[in-house]
Amino acid sequence: MPKRSIGKKKKLGVSVEKDKFSEWYTQTIIKADLVDYSPVSGCLIFKPMGYAIWEIIKDETDKRFKKLGIKNVYFPLFIPESLLKKEAAHLKGFSPEVAWVTEVGKTKLTEKLAIRPTSETIMYSSYAKWIRSWRDLPLRLNQWNNVVRWEFRHPIPFLRTREFLWNEGHTVFASKEEALKEEKEIFGIYNEILRDYMAVSGFISKKTETEKFAGAEFTKAIECLLPNGRVVQGPDFHHDGQIFSKAFGIKFLNKNGKEEYAWQNTWAITTRMIGIMLAIHGDNKGLIIPPRVAPIQVVIVPIFFEKSKGKVLKKAKELEKKFNKFRVFLDSREEYTPGYKFNDWEMKGVPIRIELGPKDIEKNQVIVVRRDNGKKEIVKIKNLDKKTKEVLDDIHNVLLRRSKEMLKKGTMQVKSMNELIKGIKNKKMIISEWCGNKECEDWIKAKTGGVKIIGINESAKAKGKCVYCGKKAKYVVYIAKSY
Amino acid sequence: MPKRSIGKKKKLGVSVEKDKFSEWYTQTIIKADLVDYSPVSGCLIFKPMGYAIWEIIKDETDKRFKKLGIKNVYFPLFIPESLLKKEAAHLKGFSPEVAWVTEVGKTKLTEKLAIRPTSETIMYSSYAKWIRSWRDLPLRLNQWNNVVRWEFRHPIPFLRTREFLWNEGHTVFASKEEALKEEKEIFGIYNEILRDYMAVSGFISKKTETEKFAGAEFTKAIECLLPNGRVVQGPDFHHDGQIFSKAFGIKFLNKNGKEEYAWQNTWAITTRMIGIMLAIHGDNKGLIIPPRVAPIQVVIVPIFFEKSKGKVLKKAKELEKKFNKFRVFLDSREEYTPGYKFNDWEMKGVPIRIELGPKDIEKNQVIVVRRDNGKKEIVKIKNLDKKTKEVLDDIHNVLLRRSKEMLKKGTMQVKSMNELIKGIKNKKMIISEWCGNKECEDWIKAKTGGVKIIGINESAKAKGKCVYCGKKAKYVVYIAKSY
Repeated sequence: MPKRSIGKKKKLGVSVEKDKFSEWYTQTIIKADLVDYSPVSGCLIFKPMGYAIWEIIKDETDKRFKKLGIKNVYFPLFIPESLLKKEAAHLKGFSPEVAWVTEVGKTKLTEKLAIRPTSETIMYSSYAKWIRSWRDLPLRLNQWNNVVRWEFRHPIPFLRTREFLWNEGHTVFASKEEALKEEKEIFGIYNEILRDYMAVSGFISKKTETEKFAGAEFTKAIECLLPNGRVVQGPDFHHDGQIFSKAFGIKFLNKNGKEEYAWQNTWAITTRMIGIMLAIHGDNKGLIIPPRVAPIQVVIVPIFFEKSKGKVLKKAKELEKKFNKFRVFLDSREEYTPGYKFNDWEMKGVPIRIELGPKDIEKNQVIVVRRDNGKKEIVKIKNLDKKTKEVLDDIHNVLLRRSKEMLKKGTMQVKSMNELIKGIKNKKMIISEWCGNKECEDWIKAKTGGVKIIGINESAKAKGKCVYCGKKAKYVVYIAKSY
Repeated sequence: MPKRSIGKKKKLGVSVEKDKFSEWYTQTIIKADLVDYSPVSGCLIFKPMGYAIWEIIKDETDKRFKKLGIKNVYFPLFIPESLLKKEAAHLKGFSPEVAWVTEVGKTKLTEKLAIRPTSETIMYSSYAKWIRSWRDLPLRLNQWNNVVRWEFRHPIPFLRTREFLWNEGHTVFASKEEALKEEKEIFGIYNEILRDYMAVSGFISKKTETEKFAGAEFTKAIECLLPNGRVVQGPDFHHDGQIFSKAFGIKFLNKNGKEEYAWQNTWAITTRMIGIMLAIHGDNKGLIIPPRVAPIQVVIVPIFFEKSKGKVLKKAKELEKKFNKFRVFLDSREEYTPGYKFNDWEMKGVPIRIELGPKDIEKNQVIVVRRDNGKKEIVKIKNLDKKTKEVLDDIHNVLLRRSKEMLKKGTMQVKSMNELIKGIKNKKMIISEWCGNKECEDWIKAKTGGVKIIGINESAKAKGKCVYCGKKAKYVVYIAKSY
């Protein structure tokens, strides 16, 4: 008999169902060994599995940036207070959350230094030095780094942390038209990463004046709906117009020898996206990690009695090596039963489990089990390569389809505040119409206890009345609780 | 006629010879567009070319770490003061250089937070939670991140900066023997990166008790000799014994069910290494970037008169595309003459320049110019692929050989303090013998105005007398000025 599980004494698996989303989410993510809490409240430790997901996302995104001719750089972590103050709206937006270095060793600094909450100000003071003529444009730089925003609300792994990792692209163009063209390129990349790697279906919204980035002319974002009806902002794109170029003096001589202020964009994807992805795909058994970002795509669980151990482990190692074009892990731990391992890897969300016992070896077969639907299938080893590829692709497609359906089912069109409030109670994201008036935006928030206009659906045309004031509507908007 | 250079008005190239090393070094690195100064003194901006070198070093190193089974993680930037205080020697070593966050927004923190100067303390408090039994060992984690050490001495690009980028590996083993075995693996990787990529010849030394890492049992490092006779510490490896495991309570149940403290190592390569590499290889014309880490390996400079412009540019683009397995850049700027471009790319250190004019096209040839020795060669286009590979390899080998010779020539064996002082004056690194007594170590420093024992050559046996006291020597040591 296989050894009895020593894990039985441990609390195995996830103890709450996904319906209780908040509890399910934090419990699963910690139990699945992706992250851990750190001694600094609100700052997360990315454990190997959590960080490996980020590495895959980063590499795929970075490759695409580079194809567009965008270059990576690294600017300092610190921003002198005087620089951060240069653009008023930007300062106002970020200063409540800034962590300040005021002393080094035993010496008080004469000017305190902000830990970058974002790098506009430190980068643009250099851009102003570097850019002289139209020949220096476009300047398209990016960095992958850590930033700190000292949230005072309750931290949530990935979704709300005080330090997070991201890319920040900061680009400069000679004309507004050129700058605006970049939006499509960048959202093209981010969309590809969400759709083709993370199997997440989001939607693009344009932020209201209230919600836009501090210092931007406009902000658009790919928004994602979580199972609890909350909307989270994914990757975003800010067109800054000439706001920063005027504050920082980023000027260039155009082809006619005249001096002009430059046009700027900035855009980002953050580690928050990992949380969104996990929240969308998991189930009562734990996480489901989409195959293309899964650090382990296939786990091999050998099943043996004492006398067949050598033979089974040998074959399992053979398979691990043979199929190394996939990310394969052989779980050869001897202190756990196969059953324990099945649960463990299901909770951790590995897309495919391969079971291999002595009888399978005799028949040149394995059992392939899918994480997304639990289906088991006997597969001849000679077909395993092809089958694995197919199943990984199929799991990806199933997850993406589910994500689309979840978004559709989680959305509700309403025409009145009553319906809106009811919809929110039922954990729906609301689509409605709005007059564009800030007062109505504020009232919606006030009447619902914090539900807000997530953003404008630019591809839809308003035909009716503002859900709050009843006057002619200007915009179709998304309304929801957010993080 | 090709257009006249508008660059002639600009101060072109490097204005000092390499003999005046300090001036040459900073001037060249800034002019070559690798880095720039930032508004925060001592913090460097990595511009695209500078950062791209780091990306190549990082990727190659990381690949090798992963092959050893080392996993990447990410721990928070902040370390609470109480944690930093847990290991006394460690605290003493780092606290004078720590940048402290004392407030966030307008709120004073109750406990101040250090910006990590290194992550032992924040990582090991988690290790103590994660490690339970021998089954959890070895634990081999690494992170690529930024760290801050607030140097008060004059900053030097790459070589001495207040923020720098690095890897920090932190590994835990069940026995001292296992931990010590890792040294060879890690230095194997670092050596490969220095030798096979950066074309740098270094030597391993074991630090004295005075110079070892704060908290380590012993420190070894790959040291490099610069043209000015100063030695810089490159990648290092620290064996921590049980010092941190005792301070942080990192214990495990061994196979006999007994509790033991674990054994630890830590190791790093930093962006400082880029500075070392550039310092070693450059010449009076500027930088020479070793081919395997050069972001641009081949620059194509088209040469044309107005009427041949279309034809030459077309062919140049063809070549750029055709040879894209190398990192090729076509310099098609029209505002500069070919001569200007030659100087520019020579200063920037691109290993190969390809010149292409209308007559070359007729003859299906190009001119290949090497940065290391300036030699020109006519090469048929059909042979260009093979030739490029050969020349890149050869340049690498030449640079590595030069680096070895420079190390050899820059080293001097001495037996007396008089010789030692003379050697240092002549910008030599000294090899001598030492009794192992800290007093003698201090006196050498005092008598020479700061020259120190860089470390011990463990592979050589002392046969003579201590260079300072004349008593029987225990160690062969390297003595030099350092950064």
